Amino acid sequence: MKDLVIGIDIGGTFTKFGFVDREGNFYAKGTAPTDIFDNVDDYLINLVKELQQAEQGIGVPYRIIGVGIGAPNANYHKGTIENAPNLKWKGIIYFGELFRKYYDAPVKLTNDANAAALGEMIYGGARGMKDFIMITLGTGLGSGIVVNGDLVYGHDGFAGELGHVNVLKNGRRCGCGNYGCLETYVSAPGIKRTVFELLASDHEGSALADYSFNELNSEMIYEAAIQNDPVALKAFDLTGKILGTKLADSVAHTSPEAIFLFGGLAKSGRYIFEPTKKYMEESMMGLFKNKVAILPSGLMDKNAAVLGAGALIWKDQE
Amino acid sequence: MKDLVIGIDIGGTFTKFGFVDREGNFYAKGTAPTDIFDNVDDYLINLVKELQQAEQGIGVPYRIIGVGIGAPNANYHKGTIENAPNLKWKGIIYFGELFRKYYDAPVKLTNDANAAALGEMIYGGARGMKDFIMITLGTGLGSGIVVNGDLVYGHDGFAGELGHVNVLKNGRRCGCGNYGCLETYVSAPGIKRTVFELLASDHEGSALADYSFNELNSEMIYEAAIQNDPVALKAFDLTGKILGTKLADSVAHTSPEAIFLFGGLAKSGRYIFEPTKKYMEESMMGLFKNKVAILPSGLMDKNAAVLGAGALIWKDQE
Repeated sequence: MKDLVIGIDIGGTFTKFGFVDREGNFYAKGTAPTDIFDNVDDYLINLVKELQQAEQGIGVPYRIIGVGIGAPNANYHKGTIENAPNLKWKGIIYFGELFRKYYDAPVKLTNDANAAALGEMIYGGARGMKDFIMITLGTGLGSGIVVNGDLVYGHDGFAGELGHVNVLKNGRRCGCGNYGCLETYVSAPGIKRTVFELLASDHEGSALADYSFNELNSEMIYEAAIQNDPVALKAFDLTGKILGTKLADSVAHTSPEAIFLFGGLAKSGRYIFEPTKKYMEESMMGLFKNKVAILPSGLMDKNAAVLGAGALIWKDQE
Repeated sequence: MKDLVIGIDIGGTFTKFGFVDREGNFYAKGTAPTDIFDNVDDYLINLVKELQQAEQGIGVPYRIIGVGIGAPNANYHKGTIENAPNLKWKGIIYFGELFRKYYDAPVKLTNDANAAALGEMIYGGARGMKDFIMITLGTGLGSGIVVNGDLVYGHDGFAGELGHVNVLKNGRRCGCGNYGCLETYVSAPGIKRTVFELLASDHEGSALADYSFNELNSEMIYEAAIQNDPVALKAFDLTGKILGTKLADSVAHTSPEAIFLFGGLAKSGRYIFEPTKKYMEESMMGLFKNKVAILPSGLMDKNAAVLGAGALIWKDQE
C-alpha cells in the first residue's frame, strides 16, 4: 500500500494538482480551471470531480494520507483563504472545511511561497537545512522563512511577507495598497518598471526603448542583458541591489544558512544572483558576512508548487 | 529542596548575578567587576569566588539546576563569546567550557537581548505569547525574536540583530563597522545624534542648544520633550518614525503578536511609543494592520537582565 498525498496549487487562472509519494514521484496529475467559477462551491465541485477522475489512473494500491494546498493569502492556522486579490472568492473563505465536505481527508493550507519553502526543504536544495529563506520571484515576490526546521507562520498565520517590506517611502504603488514595497522593485513587473525609469533618465541607445510598457516583459530584459544592453544591465544591477540590501535585513532577523531564489527572474542566473550577493554582503554587519549562500532553487524546473503543497503533509509526518 | 538557577548578566563594566527560583524570587544576588580583568580566567576566578560567597547567604535547602548567562556577542549553540566590542577578551572565548572548569553546573549562554526576551516570556508581559519581539534600547539596540514559543537563534547562533538592519545607505557610522544601521538612529546615543542634526538644521530656540555633544544624554532630551522643546519633540518623532518603519519590516518577517520596548529610551513613554506605533501602522501592508501591539516591557524596573539570563535555564525545563 503506497502512501500518497494530494498536492494542490491554486493559481488565479488554473489549479494544478498531483498525487505524490514521499520521494516526489507523481502517480497522477491534472489541472482544473479557477477563474471561471464565481462561487467557491462550484469551483470545489469541479475540482473534486477532476481529482477523482485523475485518481482512477493510479496504477498501484494506495491510500491518501492528506491533502496539502498552496493558495494566495492562505492561513495555515485557520485553513482559510482571506481576501486574496487574484481570486474571485472575496472575504474569508473557510477553504479547508469546505474542501472536506467534498473530499474526506486531512487538509492543510498555506500560501504558495510557504509551500515552495517546504518543497525546497523536502525535495530541493534545502534538504538537511534547519534555517533558510525561500524567495519566489514572479508577478510578485513571495517568501517562506524556515527557522529551526519549521516554517514561520506567526501569531496570525501570515508571517513571511517579504514582498511587502519597505524599500522607499512614497515609492512605487503596490498591489497591497501601500507604496514602495519590495515587490514593486523586485519581481517580473518590478524590473520592467525599473527599465522604464532608466529609459526616462538616459536611454543610452537601449534596444528596450522600442517596446511599450505593455509589450515589455522580464524575459526580454534578460535577453537584452545577454546582448550587453546598458539599460538591461543597469536594471538587473539595481534590482539585485534592492533585493540584496533587504535580504541583509532578513539575515539580521533569522540568520539563515542560505537564501533560495525561485521563479522567472531567478532564471536570469548571474544577472540577478551576482548583484544580489554583492550588495547583501556589503549591507550586512561583520558577524554575518560570507556565511549566507544565495542559491537557485533546486526545484526550478520541477512542478514545485504542487510538490511544495504536498510537502505540507509530509512535513508533519516526520 | 528549592530548585534555583544562577542568572548572570555580563556587562562591559560590571557583571550582575542572582540566585533565582522559577517564580523570579531572588535568594541571593551580587555584583563583580568585568573590565578590571584583562584575562578571562582571572575574571572567572573572581566571579566564581563572588558567586560562592553570595551562595552562603541562601537561607533554604536548595540545588542549582543550571547557570544562564547573558553576554554581548554570546553564541547559544557554541557557548562562546565572539569578538565582543565592549569586552577586553578578544577573539572567540569558549566561555561555557571555561566556566565549568570553575563551577560545576550546566551552563547556557545567549546575548543580553535574547536573555531579555526569555525574561519577558517567563516573567514579564509576554507570558502566554508564542510570537513576539523584544527590543532593548540602551547604548545600542538589541533584539530577541521569539517564534512559536522559541527564541530564533539562526544557523550560526547569532540571529536577532535588529540593531544592524539598514536604515540609510552611507548613513551614520556604526560601532559594527558599517554605516546607517538602525541603532545609530534608535538608541540613547542615536537620538542624541538626531538632536544634533536637528540643531544644525534649525535650532528653533531649543534649550538643547546649550549642551555639548559630550554633555547631552537621552534623559535630558526626554526632559526637554516634557517642556515641549521643539527639537526634542522632533527628535522623538523622527526616532519613532525610523523605528516604526523598520518594525513594520520585522512584522512582515515573523508576524508577532506584540513588540516590547525595554530600556532607557523606552522609559520616555508616549514620546517614543506613539510615533513608533503610528509609523509602523502606516508602513505595514493591510494584512498586518491593527494587529500588533507595541508595549513597554513588563520587567522595566526589575532586574531584567539577570532574570532573563536565568530564564535560559527555566525555558528548557518546560
